[in-house]
Amino acid sequence: MLTITGVAGLPEIEPGADLAALVLAHGDVRSGDVVVVTSKIVSKAEGRIIDLADVEPSAFAVRWSAEWDKDPRVVEVVLRESRRIVRQIGPVLITETHHGFVCANAGVDQSSSGAHDRVVVLPDDPDASARRIRAGFVAAGLDVAVIVSDTFGRPWREGQTDVAVGVAGIHPMVSYIGQHDPHGHEYRVQELCVVDELAAAAELVKGNTSRVPVGVVRGHTWTPDDTATMAPVLRDPSRDLFR
Amino acid sequence: MLTITGVAGLPEIEPGADLAALVLAHGDVRSGDVVVVTSKIVSKAEGRIIDLADVEPSAFAVRWSAEWDKDPRVVEVVLRESRRIVRQIGPVLITETHHGFVCANAGVDQSSSGAHDRVVVLPDDPDASARRIRAGFVAAGLDVAVIVSDTFGRPWREGQTDVAVGVAGIHPMVSYIGQHDPHGHEYRVQELCVVDELAAAAELVKGNTSRVPVGVVRGHTWTPDDTATMAPVLRDPSRDLFR
Repeated sequence: MLTITGVAGLPEIEPGADLAALVLAHGDVRSGDVVVVTSKIVSKAEGRIIDLADVEPSAFAVRWSAEWDKDPRVVEVVLRESRRIVRQIGPVLITETHHGFVCANAGVDQSSSGAHDRVVVLPDDPDASARRIRAGFVAAGLDVAVIVSDTFGRPWREGQTDVAVGVAGIHPMVSYIGQHDPHGHEYRVQELCVVDELAAAAELVKGNTSRVPVGVVRGHTWTPDDTATMAPVLRDPSRDLFR
Repeated sequence: MLTITGVAGLPEIEPGADLAALVLAHGDVRSGDVVVVTSKIVSKAEGRIIDLADVEPSAFAVRWSAEWDKDPRVVEVVLRESRRIVRQIGPVLITETHHGFVCANAGVDQSSSGAHDRVVVLPDDPDASARRIRAGFVAAGLDVAVIVSDTFGRPWREGQTDVAVGVAGIHPMVSYIGQHDPHGHEYRVQELCVVDELAAAAELVKGNTSRVPVGVVRGHTWTPDDTATMAPVLRDPSRDLFR
């Protein structure tokens, strides 16, 4: 059996905040748990907040923003957070972030930034963020896995779901390749991205408007891996059919 | 708090099996729960098993199968289950199913079919399947939501995750549009596909090789909707940037 519990009551996160300590102060965490932390508070703790007054939009950002009634400074931040534009159709901007994630607006978040003239951008290195948070738990004697999550859309299906953008301690995949089903048929392609499933599961207790930025999953058996990163999840462009 | 429990011990599912009765006999289900059922056993209960000996592959299926060392009869079944080929590159065949799902091989499953010369195809109408299963629970006095799930890949990210392909009783989306974050900023695009998140969460207890084809989610507050279908999840092709 799996249990998933939200951690509420955290204060407004300021740059330099110790997230592991805050989660321990407000939630119940035990060794073996998987702690899923919304990227927004990780970004805030790391000072990844951009004051739009400091942003000088490029001519490209100004022109496109005017066409679609967008804030050119926000568009400029999106472009800075991107290494490539995947689709720019109508008002929609899907880009590949510097980390290699493909998502709308490079994950730049205009909500919950504490003020309307600021935006929150994704952590610079979400795996490193997850490792730092995990180190905080380990220092407290708790061997937990950490997932940093964000809310992404996807092609073909409406609605968004939470996915992992950073991991620490847990290998992101569980492979059934080479194993056999109950009838002896060998699995040839089945590899589950369990960290995305854990992120999605945690979203169910976190919600997006409520102040529950952390979910604790208990009862999941994970593959401990101190070298874990999101790299195995990022599909190589040569293998991708939709860029 | 959410709890997710796998239902194990179900017998091999035969055509005509009463899945609600089997889940009630082997699991603990209460009113308010969300019951996630793997599409494979739904298909089996509905006799959606194709004997490959009965399949006459088309010339197109024969030619392409020879090129990539595939079983032309399986390829023929995939084509029959599809209304459009989205990508056919190398050995990969991504199609849009008759239901409107975009996935590899139209969801045709060569594993767990009970024999190697048979394949399992998706339910003809997974929403109707979910409604029938829900009706079984309701007849037993239990008001539960039902999700029929399958394991799909996705662009840009390696690994598969479970998603919903049929729903009953539960609206597939939770919208935050028009609501406000703690800072008064209005959400403009946030709409979560909670049924996909529930399907992903249930996969964590089901696993793919084990005989745990059902997960019961307790503690999730769902929007009761007796007219619910997957239609709101299927993005209209005119809005889709990746077909």
